[in-house]
Amino acid sequence: MTANTETPPRAGLVVSAHSADFVWRSGGAIATHVRQGYRMKVVCLSFGERGESAKLWRKGEMTEEKVKAARREEAQKAADILGAEIEFFDLGDYPMRVSDEALFRLVDVYRDVQPAFVLSHSVKDPYNFDHPLAMHVAQEARVIAQAEGHNPGQKVVGAPPVYAFEPHQTEQCEWIPNTFLDITDVWDLKRQAIECMAGQEHLWAYYTRVAQQRGVQAKRNIGITAARNIEYAEGYMRLTPSVVGDLS
Amino acid sequence: MTANTETPPRAGLVVSAHSADFVWRSGGAIATHVRQGYRMKVVCLSFGERGESAKLWRKGEMTEEKVKAARREEAQKAADILGAEIEFFDLGDYPMRVSDEALFRLVDVYRDVQPAFVLSHSVKDPYNFDHPLAMHVAQEARVIAQAEGHNPGQKVVGAPPVYAFEPHQTEQCEWIPNTFLDITDVWDLKRQAIECMAGQEHLWAYYTRVAQQRGVQAKRNIGITAARNIEYAEGYMRLTPSVVGDLS
Amino acid sequence: MTANTETPPRAGLVVSAHSADFVWRSGGAIATHVRQGYRMKVVCLSFGERGESAKLWRKGEMTEEKVKAARREEAQKAADILGAEIEFFDLGDYPMRVSDEALFRLVDVYRDVQPAFVLSHSVKDPYNFDHPLAMHVAQEARVIAQAEGHNPGQKVVGAPPVYAFEPHQTEQCEWIPNTFLDITDVWDLKRQAIECMAGQEHLWAYYTRVAQQRGVQAKRNIGITAARNIEYAEGYMRLTPSVVGDLS
Amino acid sequence: MTANTETPPRAGLVVSAHSADFVWRSGGAIATHVRQGYRMKVVCLSFGERGESAKLWRKGEMTEEKVKAARREEAQKAADILGAEIEFFDLGDYPMRVSDEALFRLVDVYRDVQPAFVLSHSVKDPYNFDHPLAMHVAQEARVIAQAEGHNPGQKVVGAPPVYAFEPHQTEQCEWIPNTFLDITDVWDLKRQAIECMAGQEHLWAYYTRVAQQRGVQAKRNIGITAARNIEYAEGYMRLTPSVVGDLS
Amino acid sequence: MTANTETPPRAGLVVSAHSADFVWRSGGAIATHVRQGYRMKVVCLSFGERGESAKLWRKGEMTEEKVKAARREEAQKAADILGAEIEFFDLGDYPMRVSDEALFRLVDVYRDVQPAFVLSHSVKDPYNFDHPLAMHVAQEARVIAQAEGHNPGQKVVGAPPVYAFEPHQTEQCEWIPNTFLDITDVWDLKRQAIECMAGQEHLWAYYTRVAQQRGVQAKRNIGITAARNIEYAEGYMRLTPSVVGDLS
Amino acid sequence: MTANTETPPRAGLVVSAHSADFVWRSGGAIATHVRQGYRMKVVCLSFGERGESAKLWRKGEMTEEKVKAARREEAQKAADILGAEIEFFDLGDYPMRVSDEALFRLVDVYRDVQPAFVLSHSVKDPYNFDHPLAMHVAQEARVIAQAEGHNPGQKVVGAPPVYAFEPHQTEQCEWIPNTFLDITDVWDLKRQAIECMAGQEHLWAYYTRVAQQRGVQAKRNIGITAARNIEYAEGYMRLTPSVVGDLS
Repeated sequence: MTANTETPPRAGLVVSAHSADFVWRSGGAIATHVRQGYRMKVVCLSFGERGESAKLWRKGEMTEEKVKAARREEAQKAADILGAEIEFFDLGDYPMRVSDEALFRLVDVYRDVQPAFVLSHSVKDPYNFDHPLAMHVAQEARVIAQAEGHNPGQKVVGAPPVYAFEPHQTEQCEWIPNTFLDITDVWDLKRQAIECMAGQEHLWAYYTRVAQQRGVQAKRNIGITAARNIEYAEGYMRLTPSVVGDLS
Repeated sequence: MTANTETPPRAGLVVSAHSADFVWRSGGAIATHVRQGYRMKVVCLSFGERGESAKLWRKGEMTEEKVKAARREEAQKAADILGAEIEFFDLGDYPMRVSDEALFRLVDVYRDVQPAFVLSHSVKDPYNFDHPLAMHVAQEARVIAQAEGHNPGQKVVGAPPVYAFEPHQTEQCEWIPNTFLDITDVWDLKRQAIECMAGQEHLWAYYTRVAQQRGVQAKRNIGITAARNIEYAEGYMRLTPSVVGDLS
Repeated sequence: MTANTETPPRAGLVVSAHSADFVWRSGGAIATHVRQGYRMKVVCLSFGERGESAKLWRKGEMTEEKVKAARREEAQKAADILGAEIEFFDLGDYPMRVSDEALFRLVDVYRDVQPAFVLSHSVKDPYNFDHPLAMHVAQEARVIAQAEGHNPGQKVVGAPPVYAFEPHQTEQCEWIPNTFLDITDVWDLKRQAIECMAGQEHLWAYYTRVAQQRGVQAKRNIGITAARNIEYAEGYMRLTPSVVGDLS
Repeated sequence: MTANTETPPRAGLVVSAHSADFVWRSGGAIATHVRQGYRMKVVCLSFGERGESAKLWRKGEMTEEKVKAARREEAQKAADILGAEIEFFDLGDYPMRVSDEALFRLVDVYRDVQPAFVLSHSVKDPYNFDHPLAMHVAQEARVIAQAEGHNPGQKVVGAPPVYAFEPHQTEQCEWIPNTFLDITDVWDLKRQAIECMAGQEHLWAYYTRVAQQRGVQAKRNIGITAARNIEYAEGYMRLTPSVVGDLS
Repeated sequence: MTANTETPPRAGLVVSAHSADFVWRSGGAIATHVRQGYRMKVVCLSFGERGESAKLWRKGEMTEEKVKAARREEAQKAADILGAEIEFFDLGDYPMRVSDEALFRLVDVYRDVQPAFVLSHSVKDPYNFDHPLAMHVAQEARVIAQAEGHNPGQKVVGAPPVYAFEPHQTEQCEWIPNTFLDITDVWDLKRQAIECMAGQEHLWAYYTRVAQQRGVQAKRNIGITAARNIEYAEGYMRLTPSVVGDLS
Repeated sequence: MTANTETPPRAGLVVSAHSADFVWRSGGAIATHVRQGYRMKVVCLSFGERGESAKLWRKGEMTEEKVKAARREEAQKAADILGAEIEFFDLGDYPMRVSDEALFRLVDVYRDVQPAFVLSHSVKDPYNFDHPLAMHVAQEARVIAQAEGHNPGQKVVGAPPVYAFEPHQTEQCEWIPNTFLDITDVWDLKRQAIECMAGQEHLWAYYTRVAQQRGVQAKRNIGITAARNIEYAEGYMRLTPSVVGDLS
């Protein structure tokens, strides 16, 4: 646990490349922290309208605007279920391009939210170049939001830890989960949010199994003999060191 | 924080290759946890009599037994100051060799102590082959202590996190501190323990500066603007994932 | 595909640290190659009697001999289902120790089997030190089996590719699957073999989900639009380069 | 071998940063696959007119246009010898800059060619920043070409494996050959293509020796005792997992 | 030592992201080489006016122009003390953006200075994105400056070794010092230059301790028993191979 | 260059796993340093009689003693040509096993030779387990030779840099040449020494090409425009940091 215990209404920030990523990869974290009283804010940099909406495109009579509208609706619904605020930057995908204007907009979000932690994609992903770009932007915005000379007078942010949530093929992405979050208590909410993603139904079972596997592993990492049971978990790769008062 | 919150009198285990390592590298952690009510147990695999006692050897009229006695006395004194129990395995150094008998003795310590966390050396150290061997043995003993079939009937251990404490030349050892422990409040004790090491006076200032640098870095990682001040810290490389209930 | 296409009755060798590993991790590969006419040989270095038989030990009235007998029976049954020969070296586990005598026995197996490929554990596994040791021994025996001067006159082995099969927590083991084997057609057999492992029932569902996840990933790596479907797969990390005649 | 065996006239795509790279690094692969009936398409992102034409510049009376014309002629001649189609993007070099327009042009090539495999540069090259950029663009275009929402209605591409061909100083580039292609049968063609590169005669012998060394290594990786001889080979680093039906 | 011993008035180039970096990280190298007769040239890409001038901003009544003027003055004073030429590119910071125009300006500096070695930041720094960008630009400009076709007729540069100087949190930046420079004799100058940085007084002690720690380590790497004493040193990560005539 | 300039008759130590390794991999370094007045000492841990003498074994009527005698003769002849002392430990190969007795014998060599640098094998080699073992032993003996408490009264060694010479398949061994030694002037001697290895004639051309490739690379790393020519070179991976007084 870090030392930022003084900030009254704590908050968390999720930077999602496409409009469904925050659900598969951090839906449990969002719901967990909302339960604990956190304000959770999701920024979707794009709707994933070109690269992650295959099923919608195959419907015929489709336009980019229609796909985006459908994706926005799904994401909004999922965010509502999880209890998160959501904001869409609509930057386009495949390829995503992030202007300095968009970067500064994200800096504004940081300064407004004052997050106690930040979640985004893995630093590498050979299957998806939008994902590491989203993480890069999340980190770059964080650093700018810390700078006294950026919009002087605004309240700068502290040093919120940054976590990479789970990519689709972890080992190809050099992603190693050094942190497991027990999401057993909020699994039902996450599953409901997952089911909002009508256009990617083939992933529902996949990410349910991901949660089960991570549950087994989390349990193993507290010890099989521990009293606490863990059925569902999310894995995270913490990128920044933690500062603790106790090593157990 | 892990979930092992149920064990009444918590404990920590330190596996030190030579008799002074636990002081330079984890003296602050030991004192901190003793203050919090932990039982802290140090195992010194050797006295470092051949490879880390240059100053003593240069005194003349020296024998290995005399060196070992001097080193034992220093280490005992330091442990007393820090509040730790200490046990000497006297396995020899440069090179250290660990028999299965010694390994099983360490397993016995694990089962007796039931540690909530374990500290030992970096996994790699091209300047010192005893150090990574100590860590290897610490990890191997931990796994055996978890096995139901080893001395059936004894209470097996859970899954205590394993941390590598700071080696002398960190970057050459592929050691990356992902965890900082604030030791400001116990710094005086650590410094007193350090000063017990009469034979290695040249390292006193070195490890004082290490603590100061890590203090600055820990402070940076909670945010310069955070209320809490950190003057002295110890860095650790946690090798096993943590299981948490909150990501901030 | 390698160039060793000339060897008439082809064979594969699996070096398993404990008596159930070959099932969870390579049961599909064994069954697949048996179907293709391969002779498949499994060497179990130990029964996993101390470290991987928790459920058996908790039965009460247990001895190491009884546990070993139960584990042998399970493993033999699984091998029969998969169509593999199995040989038990009974070297002990937690910790496993491999004498040169045992190493040379494995060299003899290599020379007898003349494998076209070799499967064993990941090179690193911080949760289990017997696993990487098994892989080390598998590789060392392979190199000795290639040496003209070892038992001169015997037929030396060629250069069979070496694969690491999937460990329990892949990312902690630096294990990256660069090869997927489609096991959809033999899944039923693998599942039957899995169900022989009465003592580790908690892993049945876990490794079923592993096979499903790897199936989804394998499908993605041939292209979602490919005609062929893949429901179950095994992942392997090939350690040695392949020599091919076609890059597609 | 992957499963895309259904595509009738198979094809391969080579993305070359400068106009000679495809010859030194993949001339053997091009000729080999042409012989097997593949359509081979080479895209040269630049002519290498500024950074890889030193000999031409030293002739005197040189202009960039003259250098480019000379380089184009050499490359066209080499492509003819190897049997490849070649297309020049003329994006400039040292530094190369790739606009989104150029990226989409490459996506069009992917959709037209429907490659069964893709060859480009190493992911890292501290001696040449155009090289990793070419690979990045090759990978980014591949992913866009897979996206249903990019130019909806066009035939999307499958998941062709991506290989990094051999850079000049392999170890400095973190390039590891996990795949060797036997090019003994087409070596004469490759050497002829190499000799088209009049401006870089100092590299002829260098890349001939590269092919010989890789030949020796390929031979070693199928086993010294194997019947097949390999005199010349090319090394490749496959970046994407393979999906196979046989592990030998 | 490399072979470029023929160039008469030798020179070194330092590419500093912000206006104080060259002091903390390479002040000793600058002063050492100036003493040896080198021309030392420092390029400050920005003043660090937004991200590294917190103390100045807190003074009140501050504008970006005022901060930049103060930072320029400090840097100029430090350069004077060390004996270096300094040039300010004023590209802005947090985030720094480097246009091709700025890149070519740096190429011009390379061709003018003809450096025998180049110093810049670590290749990775998760705490500061301007730093790795500066190194990237330093390397890209070096390669362009080597290209005969860039501004034909100018004298191209050779192959000066590139070193990454020490970042703030070395282990988080994958920075490993493979080269230590003894700066004991010029320490006083470096400390004077450090004290010019009025706006970052909190770093004076930090980088003094860095120099002391590196001094101890350098001493250890020549052997404790060596006659030569080293009290202060700077660590560097050499990125390019050295070409030597003697291995001791 | 390191600071150990005070030791009068300088020396170098080569630890070779098998009796021919020192020739292929460091013959040029040996001859170069002998010319410069160094005492060069080679320790061959084994003759490579089982694993690296295939051609001899195929002669028929062969025994291990005959093979060893032939290998010893070849190695002695090569050492004579290069000007090195040679000592055979005769520890056996495939697999090599190094007892503590053999380790301490190597420590004695260190203390006798007082090397200014040490050459041995790559730290990793999946094709040959004797090679990394030799390097491990070379490093372990070096550290023991530094220990005041080992045979107190003897002169301890300083901190000679350790280099890994070139393995057969560099990239598979994670071996990166950070140091090139120009061996153009002694190439004829190295080639003569190579030709002593009658039993491995297939490697003569291979290692001649290695020297040529490294020559081209060394030349590139001092700059194509440098006056000095380099036709043959050896690559080394320096494992320990260098301490220098000049960065060019």
